[in-house]
Amino acid sequence: MTGDEALFQFLLRMGDNTLILGHSVSEWCGKAPVLEEDIALANTALDLIGQTQFWLGLAGEVEGQGRSADDLAFLRDAWDFRNLLLVELPNGDFGQTLMRQFLFDAFQSVLLGRLKTSSDTRVAEIAAKASKEVAYHVERSADTVVGLGDGTEESHARMQAALDYLWPYVGEMFRGDDVDAAMVAAGIAPDPASLREEYDALVGNVLTEATLDIPKGTFSHKGGRTGYMHTEHLGHLLTSMQWLQRAYPGASW
Amino acid sequence: MTGDEALFQFLLRMGDNTLILGHSVSEWCGKAPVLEEDIALANTALDLIGQTQFWLGLAGEVEGQGRSADDLAFLRDAWDFRNLLLVELPNGDFGQTLMRQFLFDAFQSVLLGRLKTSSDTRVAEIAAKASKEVAYHVERSADTVVGLGDGTEESHARMQAALDYLWPYVGEMFRGDDVDAAMVAAGIAPDPASLREEYDALVGNVLTEATLDIPKGTFSHKGGRTGYMHTEHLGHLLTSMQWLQRAYPGASW
Repeated sequence: MTGDEALFQFLLRMGDNTLILGHSVSEWCGKAPVLEEDIALANTALDLIGQTQFWLGLAGEVEGQGRSADDLAFLRDAWDFRNLLLVELPNGDFGQTLMRQFLFDAFQSVLLGRLKTSSDTRVAEIAAKASKEVAYHVERSADTVVGLGDGTEESHARMQAALDYLWPYVGEMFRGDDVDAAMVAAGIAPDPASLREEYDALVGNVLTEATLDIPKGTFSHKGGRTGYMHTEHLGHLLTSMQWLQRAYPGASW
Repeated sequence: MTGDEALFQFLLRMGDNTLILGHSVSEWCGKAPVLEEDIALANTALDLIGQTQFWLGLAGEVEGQGRSADDLAFLRDAWDFRNLLLVELPNGDFGQTLMRQFLFDAFQSVLLGRLKTSSDTRVAEIAAKASKEVAYHVERSADTVVGLGDGTEESHARMQAALDYLWPYVGEMFRGDDVDAAMVAAGIAPDPASLREEYDALVGNVLTEATLDIPKGTFSHKGGRTGYMHTEHLGHLLTSMQWLQRAYPGASW
């Protein structure tokens, strides 16, 4: 694997995370429990899609085969996606969506903090822009996790159920491979394992305040970021996300 | 409108009804409440898709532009479909799916009975084949409507709710237009309005046995069979139904 091939893979991982999560979150538009949350979720989705434009745009540039961010978003099938399994899991109820958001936001905020000093100035610039938005995302999703976790009996039970369901997908964030090794060697991105301590501290504090218990098991699903496997949910999500570009190839406005 | 244009529209209406309902019913595969029902629903879906092959196959032949049944099924968008709105409504729970099925089966059994004597032998032959399957469908869906309607308090309430939801879509079956007038003039198909008495007798008997009340209102949704409008559900259904042919145009096996 050449350096550019590894960088391309790294950028797909960054862009696919924000694309898939952004699309999922956008499905709440017009359906969230209260207007304030509806607008907030739509805004979060827009931020994530905006970040996707940068990551996948740069990915296409690095790949050098003339593929745009849109081409990468709309003309790949499930097996070519490199997102974490966590972000392709179903929205579920509002609590599950916010728990998924918090677990991702916390990771993204730690990762982007490191990427701001990337040796690749293009990566550093995207990270600097995105981290401002993500600082707000994680503040908001953490507040909601605390509000619902330390809320009523019903909301507490739902947040605990969401955490129990999602937690086994967290470990994948910190499993490095040869792509990561190449990024570390080039000074472009950190070793994923090196992010865990800061992540656990951040997440642990919030979940404690939310009176939620982190599951004890250490089993972790994996395969999304390497492209080895995805859950059944990704294909369904793409079917909906890609339909317009598939039905009307090359359409523009 | 020439005779062939009207016949093409008539055949689209026949084929789109069975295609859209067949696809919806197929979504129950592996998810029905008991194994027997799962297999029965999958079988019904297969019958409906099989009938679609005949109706849309003949439609393509009559149109004379080289479009196959698959082309018509997979490469048209929502506004080109000519199915009754009833068949594109969501599956809902098992009771709603079976109520929708019964209301359609009853209509189809009456209609096919008349089409067996169509002046167009191709139409008469398809009707003769399909009516054998539909005789079984309507027997089965009627039995289930009675079993659930005259069942527990819960199942009765669900079936009544399904009937209340679906009944305003029944009237569309019997509203004729210039396509129907052309079919009547050519002796190809009956005036839809002429089917109502037999339909009401059949449906009325079953719903009475099921201890269900037919809603009093006479309002009827319309626009599906003329292509004037569809519900929001059709687009979502097509997104899923057409994805493979859209993502991999012309793929064959």
